[in-house]
Amino acid sequence: MESVTTLALHPDRLFPADASTREVARRLYSSVKDLPIISPHSHVPPEWISEDIPFSDPTSLLITPDHYVTRLMHAHGVQLHELGVGQGPLDEAASRAAFRHLCAHWGIYAGTPVRYWLESELVDIFGVTEVPTAGNSDAIYDQIADWIARESSTPRALMESFDIEVLATTDDPCDDLTHHRAVADDQTFARRMVPTFRPDRYLEPGRADWNAHTDRLAEVSGIDCGTWSGWVAAMEARRAYFKAHGAVSTDHSHKDLRTDVLEHADAERIYAGARAGTLSAHQAEALQRHMLTEMARMSSEDGLTMTLHPAVARNHHHPTFERYGADVGADIPTSVEVVRGLAPLLGRYGTSPQFKLVVFTMDETVFSREIGPLAGFYPSVYVGVPWWFLDAPDAIRRFRKAVTESAGFGKTSGFIDDTRAFCSIPARHDMSRRLDSVHLAELVVEHRLSEDEAASVIHALVAENPRKVFNL
Amino acid sequence: MESVTTLALHPDRLFPADASTREVARRLYSSVKDLPIISPHSHVPPEWISEDIPFSDPTSLLITPDHYVTRLMHAHGVQLHELGVGQGPLDEAASRAAFRHLCAHWGIYAGTPVRYWLESELVDIFGVTEVPTAGNSDAIYDQIADWIARESSTPRALMESFDIEVLATTDDPCDDLTHHRAVADDQTFARRMVPTFRPDRYLEPGRADWNAHTDRLAEVSGIDCGTWSGWVAAMEARRAYFKAHGAVSTDHSHKDLRTDVLEHADAERIYAGARAGTLSAHQAEALQRHMLTEMARMSSEDGLTMTLHPAVARNHHHPTFERYGADVGADIPTSVEVVRGLAPLLGRYGTSPQFKLVVFTMDETVFSREIGPLAGFYPSVYVGVPWWFLDAPDAIRRFRKAVTESAGFGKTSGFIDDTRAFCSIPARHDMSRRLDSVHLAELVVEHRLSEDEAASVIHALVAENPRKVFNL
Amino acid sequence: MESVTTLALHPDRLFPADASTREVARRLYSSVKDLPIISPHSHVPPEWISEDIPFSDPTSLLITPDHYVTRLMHAHGVQLHELGVGQGPLDEAASRAAFRHLCAHWGIYAGTPVRYWLESELVDIFGVTEVPTAGNSDAIYDQIADWIARESSTPRALMESFDIEVLATTDDPCDDLTHHRAVADDQTFARRMVPTFRPDRYLEPGRADWNAHTDRLAEVSGIDCGTWSGWVAAMEARRAYFKAHGAVSTDHSHKDLRTDVLEHADAERIYAGARAGTLSAHQAEALQRHMLTEMARMSSEDGLTMTLHPAVARNHHHPTFERYGADVGADIPTSVEVVRGLAPLLGRYGTSPQFKLVVFTMDETVFSREIGPLAGFYPSVYVGVPWWFLDAPDAIRRFRKAVTESAGFGKTSGFIDDTRAFCSIPARHDMSRRLDSVHLAELVVEHRLSEDEAASVIHALVAENPRKVFNL
Repeated sequence: MESVTTLALHPDRLFPADASTREVARRLYSSVKDLPIISPHSHVPPEWISEDIPFSDPTSLLITPDHYVTRLMHAHGVQLHELGVGQGPLDEAASRAAFRHLCAHWGIYAGTPVRYWLESELVDIFGVTEVPTAGNSDAIYDQIADWIARESSTPRALMESFDIEVLATTDDPCDDLTHHRAVADDQTFARRMVPTFRPDRYLEPGRADWNAHTDRLAEVSGIDCGTWSGWVAAMEARRAYFKAHGAVSTDHSHKDLRTDVLEHADAERIYAGARAGTLSAHQAEALQRHMLTEMARMSSEDGLTMTLHPAVARNHHHPTFERYGADVGADIPTSVEVVRGLAPLLGRYGTSPQFKLVVFTMDETVFSREIGPLAGFYPSVYVGVPWWFLDAPDAIRRFRKAVTESAGFGKTSGFIDDTRAFCSIPARHDMSRRLDSVHLAELVVEHRLSEDEAASVIHALVAENPRKVFNL
Repeated sequence: MESVTTLALHPDRLFPADASTREVARRLYSSVKDLPIISPHSHVPPEWISEDIPFSDPTSLLITPDHYVTRLMHAHGVQLHELGVGQGPLDEAASRAAFRHLCAHWGIYAGTPVRYWLESELVDIFGVTEVPTAGNSDAIYDQIADWIARESSTPRALMESFDIEVLATTDDPCDDLTHHRAVADDQTFARRMVPTFRPDRYLEPGRADWNAHTDRLAEVSGIDCGTWSGWVAAMEARRAYFKAHGAVSTDHSHKDLRTDVLEHADAERIYAGARAGTLSAHQAEALQRHMLTEMARMSSEDGLTMTLHPAVARNHHHPTFERYGADVGADIPTSVEVVRGLAPLLGRYGTSPQFKLVVFTMDETVFSREIGPLAGFYPSVYVGVPWWFLDAPDAIRRFRKAVTESAGFGKTSGFIDDTRAFCSIPARHDMSRRLDSVHLAELVVEHRLSEDEAASVIHALVAENPRKVFNL
Repeated sequence: MESVTTLALHPDRLFPADASTREVARRLYSSVKDLPIISPHSHVPPEWISEDIPFSDPTSLLITPDHYVTRLMHAHGVQLHELGVGQGPLDEAASRAAFRHLCAHWGIYAGTPVRYWLESELVDIFGVTEVPTAGNSDAIYDQIADWIARESSTPRALMESFDIEVLATTDDPCDDLTHHRAVADDQTFARRMVPTFRPDRYLEPGRADWNAHTDRLAEVSGIDCGTWSGWVAAMEARRAYFKAHGAVSTDHSHKDLRTDVLEHADAERIYAGARAGTLSAHQAEALQRHMLTEMARMSSEDGLTMTLHPAVARNHHHPTFERYGADVGADIPTSVEVVRGLAPLLGRYGTSPQFKLVVFTMDETVFSREIGPLAGFYPSVYVGVPWWFLDAPDAIRRFRKAVTESAGFGKTSGFIDDTRAFCSIPARHDMSRRLDSVHLAELVVEHRLSEDEAASVIHALVAENPRKVFNL
């Protein structure tokens, strides 16, 4: 007989052992734990909210679309297709089998943030009370399936019960934003969903599909993209469209952060080559960097906050990409250079009054060396909070210790969940609030900050900073 | 009169001050402290075990061959020859003089792992009870010399009393492994000593002595190495020979981790150039990288675990190398790039069922950014525990905090002592067990892991992980 | 009515919460807190001391010249000219207005070392008892202005009351050192001010003004600088002049640490090109690196300690440089490579008996990977303590944890304040003493070091190390 272990969430989780520090952390945390969630960057599909599509089954809810979850099982020998990846809709047998894999592999997540988020969801959302095992996997599956069937479990209902005040999605510049308009127009739904302008594929002239995307940009914008000037005008038009539909930011993820600038005539000439398909790799790169800097110029004019998520080796394992496509857990961080890369962009727009630039990284070395110091000088620059592989307790603790001393608290972005795992959003924000409380509590007990001031800082980190950085 | 200070080991050494954390750490540690030592990568000379050669004198035992010890005295102005380096066998006067240097310089090791290991050895193994000084140096020397003279102090006796279950040595592919065979054949000795296939010099066609080594490879394997195909066959033959003599892994240490692949015809052509001595530096590098990837292919077939120890600037001070040779403390770590470097190799063999790859580093920045994420996706990849300059308490603590959140505990290698200092082996493994207990204890008191699960993890780190990773 | 909050310094500030660790830290700190200040590298203008020039007003004392203070206000939207930067002498209205900006922005410094230093100065030096706000800004201004007017507030009086035993300034090689001579010759003033030889502009032949500087070098030294040999002789003459006026070190800050060496004939030829203004960028770089290595050769002969402060992107925002000039907060750290860069220099002079080389960094990654290991082998190499953006509590804590395990305590430089903010000198040294006490206290409570030995180490870090490293 398999023994059953109780699953419960300790109210002091993530707080340090030291009693005096814990006391302060508790007080700081309790002052912000119930504030509404502001999520200025996520990957939730907008149709979930506009159409209020119910979730289908536990595996599609918690496993298949979440590469955080699937990648570690893959690292322990489970094939991605066994977890539903690349399978289309799952029948119940397949869904239960995948769910059993997760429960049977519960131990491999020990010490990871995935474990933390899943435990929070199981207890707080689904009411599960036992640690998952192969043995109780079907029972837990049933419990979650029952929960999914409730009226209170649709995306809109959850947006209410999770108290998500603002949710930003990530969208193609040619998207018509129907879903965002529908949500905005619905007087019965008070929550806010805003689009984010994510033009990566339009800014990489080296891609095989760049011309096709550019053709579509011309079509959607109604502006001839035969010239560089046309492309610029089309982009400006689409940004204006996004802004009119509530967008507050643009997001960019290229392999590096270089922002070299071309002379206008060179830009026109190279752009013409791109449209003609005669570009060298070097020219494609030069044009991409120039385009990114143009995005900053536009931000300095239209006020859309620019966020940068650079330096990921996408689809590192080619056979996995061939079989399963992108976003299945095979993206790996690489090192990034910020200071020289952004110098041209910041030389032009770094002190522009309307410009706001949030720099994220998965290369921790640049926090104290580059991003903190840049944010501590440029009025436009903000330090993005820990992203992706760094969105975990120890890394978040290192982040605050690395950037606060040069940039303070006021030049950091506020928490970003960056997730497509809808039910993990509360746990992720809660984790951040706890950890920032701990960081501040340590400053308090080491007599580096008064508790009154710490209370004001923790409130700013949760509420004022994201509103300010994203014009919310 | 010089004052004498008592030397003793505190049972709670390396445990944190916080009482609740210390309690948990004690319990976790006590559950694994007496488990046998598994040492899957060391530099102990195999003849020590096969011929059970007694140690000669305290200096040859503790100082001369251990660059950890000699380098810091050198940094404080002691010449290497004063410590017996490059001197051949030492007479008693020279041995005592060198030992006196160590005792007189005891203070310079404060806060270093060398101090920790030496203190452990002095107290636990040799029974020394006074802090070394110039004044008591001869007395301590005598005490150790007496210990050396005992029958219970030979390498085999120590392998028993240290409870070393498996000891892997590091060996040249052309080695006949006589010593390993002798130990395996000796029914009276139950401990296991296995060889490790370390082919660096055969994989670097740019070396002046590469052709000579290749000639020897042909001779020993009995396979014509006039062609690339011949070289591959010869290597496969030697790996099979090693495997038949108990080897479980191959080890590789080149200046970087690039694994670009050549077309077969190019490999043959460039290899022919290497044999003809007409290779350019660029071609030599290309062939080396291809050879390393071939080693991965062979591992995916013969199941020998592949370990990588990259990025050391060997013999950084040329005059020291000229006078004293290699491995005297003048090797310095450099930065390393893992993600792009290993992409070709992992694209081919990263998901091969038999393949296991352990990546070590002395560049801490790649733990959270590159190795952890790779090990969290590829079933073949394991994170090597802290190596060389990082094999110390604070660095080991940083390691667990850097990789656990992306790779968990199950994708780490188990402790590797990597040493030629035989008497330091128990202290090194003990340090690792203590520090992993502390890491886990912190997770427990912060309510991030239950103590039951932590107990299961600490056992896995000490016992199951190394057995699994190295097929023991 | 605006509420007033009391400003006070807690005696245990920067000490950890854990009671046992705090007890040990207190004891260690109390044993060194009153030791005299040794400041072997600062940016205090020598005329302040020689002419004992009274400070003019609170803003010129605390804000305008201190880019640590101005940069974070700039990051929050205050223009540099509003803080007096680039304005020449300020009238009282402008001075008060700038001071009000600081007080109104007090909150942005939470968690930064600037806040820590300013609080220390306000309480300990000026006797301020209220947390600054826009509301009490004029009152605090008046209080500091009154303090400035006292006879006990001149630079010389402060050097006495701060107990600064030695203060090193940073000086141009062509400086006549009048101020230093005046202080040395003044029998009524017992404190020591020494110059530092800082030849950067003479070592960068790629600069537009290099020939003008070299002309001046020839003029001041009286040695023809038409040839490389002449330049070398002129430099040696100026170093001898500095040494005769009390200098103990030279300081160098270039964009990287490469020290490639030229053949003498090549040096002569390239130097001739530099004088003729026909140098390529590549040649200019080659000559610069050779010149830096020549500086090491001279240090190995004249015994002036060589300090390296590499890898800063100076004047990152060009429009700011155009308007305000250098040193206004727009310098940003970049990554640095140490091991390969210094190999030529260390191959030549790394074991020279008289040579001492202190390597500073703002790239934390090289502490454990490169500088610690180098200092743990080369007798000449010392690890520079945290510099500039790293001169803050958390970064200092990381520093000791990163370098001690490979280099111990004895191969670190002793604290360097590196500041032009005269009144912050005591607080900076005090911070360092507190933090090193905490580091040692943790080793003590974790039974890694006895408290007796820790007491001897903390004394060495404050008193013996800087005296030894800088021949004081």
